[in-house]
Order: sequence, then structure tokens, then C-alpha cells
Amino acid sequence: MKLSRARCGQLVEGSDHGVLATVHAVRGVDAVPVCFAVEGGLLAVPIDRVKPKGSVRLQRSRNLERDPRAALLCELWDGDDWSRLWWVRVALERIPGSPEQRSSFEELLRRKYRQYEGQPFADVLVFRTTDMTGWSAGPGAAAGPA
Amino acid sequence: MKLSRARCGQLVEGSDHGVLATVHAVRGVDAVPVCFAVEGGLLAVPIDRVKPKGSVRLQRSRNLERDPRAALLCELWDGDDWSRLWWVRVALERIPGSPEQRSSFEELLRRKYRQYEGQPFADVLVFRTTDMTGWSAGPGAAAGPA
Repeated sequence: MKLSRARCGQLVEGSDHGVLATVHAVRGVDAVPVCFAVEGGLLAVPIDRVKPKGSVRLQRSRNLERDPRAALLCELWDGDDWSRLWWVRVALERIPGSPEQRSSFEELLRRKYRQYEGQPFADVLVFRTTDMTGWSAGPGAAAGPA
Repeated sequence: MKLSRARCGQLVEGSDHGVLATVHAVRGVDAVPVCFAVEGGLLAVPIDRVKPKGSVRLQRSRNLERDPRAALLCELWDGDDWSRLWWVRVALERIPGSPEQRSSFEELLRRKYRQYEGQPFADVLVFRTTDMTGWSAGPGAAAGPA
């Protein structure tokens, strides 16, 4: 049921997106689906110019300027077979990130998501992973690939 | 891109699960996938005895006792076709919920999820919906069914 930290890391690396939760001054919490990439204990979430937006000055960025804590939830949902379910929650803290780290993450993101090929990013939010917790309903997620 | 509140409501009603974000004293935010049902401006999340757990005294319940604010994120992800993406975020506030409301939600949950048929719930968390915000990448989610 409880997944090891190593297995949590594998499942997150194999996930194609997640839900990013941040602290909101009035609403308490915000949540939004995000693309991401992981490398060396860091995790990066792009603010892209590919998916349509009213502005690239997004609420998630404003929340993180006020409070750098966040959580990313990756999961497998299967409405028919609940024995396959798993989820991993990554506790995060936003850090400034060096120009080298941002540039390395931009490359990683373009390799992970073909939609980003040749596209400039508006920003890349860099996070330090502070913890990882995972759960699986059956033995599948604990053993096999994502 | 921005979805109407009515359309947000339809998409949430058609969703088979969501990610519930709550306020955590130390980590700032928590997030966990949940089953849910909606009725009359209220939303209910069961603490079931079907999916395996170490305890039914879950972190989400402890968080909500300390701070009743939460958010539920429902979404469609399609890694190949980003023009199909949509998400809806429901801002929630936990309320005690009357015995009648809980019992009505238990019935609804058993109708929505066949896995709950004939199963007792450990608890049903009842929320008041305080706001709904939704986004879609293309015109599909704004018009068609979930």
C-alpha cells in the first residue's frame, strides 16, 4: 500500500502530467494540472505559450511568490479496476533556480513533450523536492513500471 | 478558453474522480485523488472502506478540521491532443452536513460507483461549493458533453 520513496520517484518520472496545488491567500488552496520534468532532486513546471492563456502572469506564480510551498499529485485512475490505482504526492518548495538549471529543464521539457519542440517558454518554475509519499491499492504499482 | 459556471458544473458532474487539495499546517497544501458526488450546490467526498488504508482517520480529515477550505480539480488530460484539454476547479468549504444530507450522498455515491454497492462508509465529508472556475484549450469542452 505505502510506496517506497524510490518507487515514488520512478512513478513521478513516468507521469505525463500532474496536479499542482499551491497556497492561495483567500481560497486557502489552488490546484491546476501542469506539465513538469524532474532532474537531480529538482522539479520544474513550465509556463508555456503553447496552451492558450489570457496572460502568462498566472495565479500559480502569484501564489508561489507569496508562499513557496506546493504539492504535485501524480496518479493512475482506473474507474473499472480499483486494484490498479496509485498516487504519489511530491512536497515541493519553489527556489529561484539558476539560469543553467532553467535552460537544462527547458531542454528536458522539450524532449518530454513534443508540443514544446521549438517553442519558447514564458517562464520555468523550479522547485526543490522536500518529500514524496505514495500509495497503491494493489501490488502492481509497487513492483512494475508506471 | 474560460468556461461558464454552468458548463463547469456539467463537467464536474460528469467526472468520475478529482484531486482534492486541502490546507496542511506544515506542508502548506496536501492533494489526494478522491471519489465524489454533487447535489444541490453541495459536494461530498466519501472516506470508504473499499480501497485499502492504514486507517480511516485520514490526513485530509485532519486538515479540514483545522481549515475547512479545499479545492477539487477535475480535468481531461490527453497527451497527444492538447486541443482537447480542460479543467475545472471547485472551491469548497467543509460543512458539518445533516444526517439526511449524508445519507442522501451515500446513496448517490453507491449509484455513481458500483464498487460502493452494499458497502458501509467510514465517513462522508460534505462541502459547500463556493466557486467554480474552468478552462478549456479548444472549443470542444465548452460545447459538448464531458
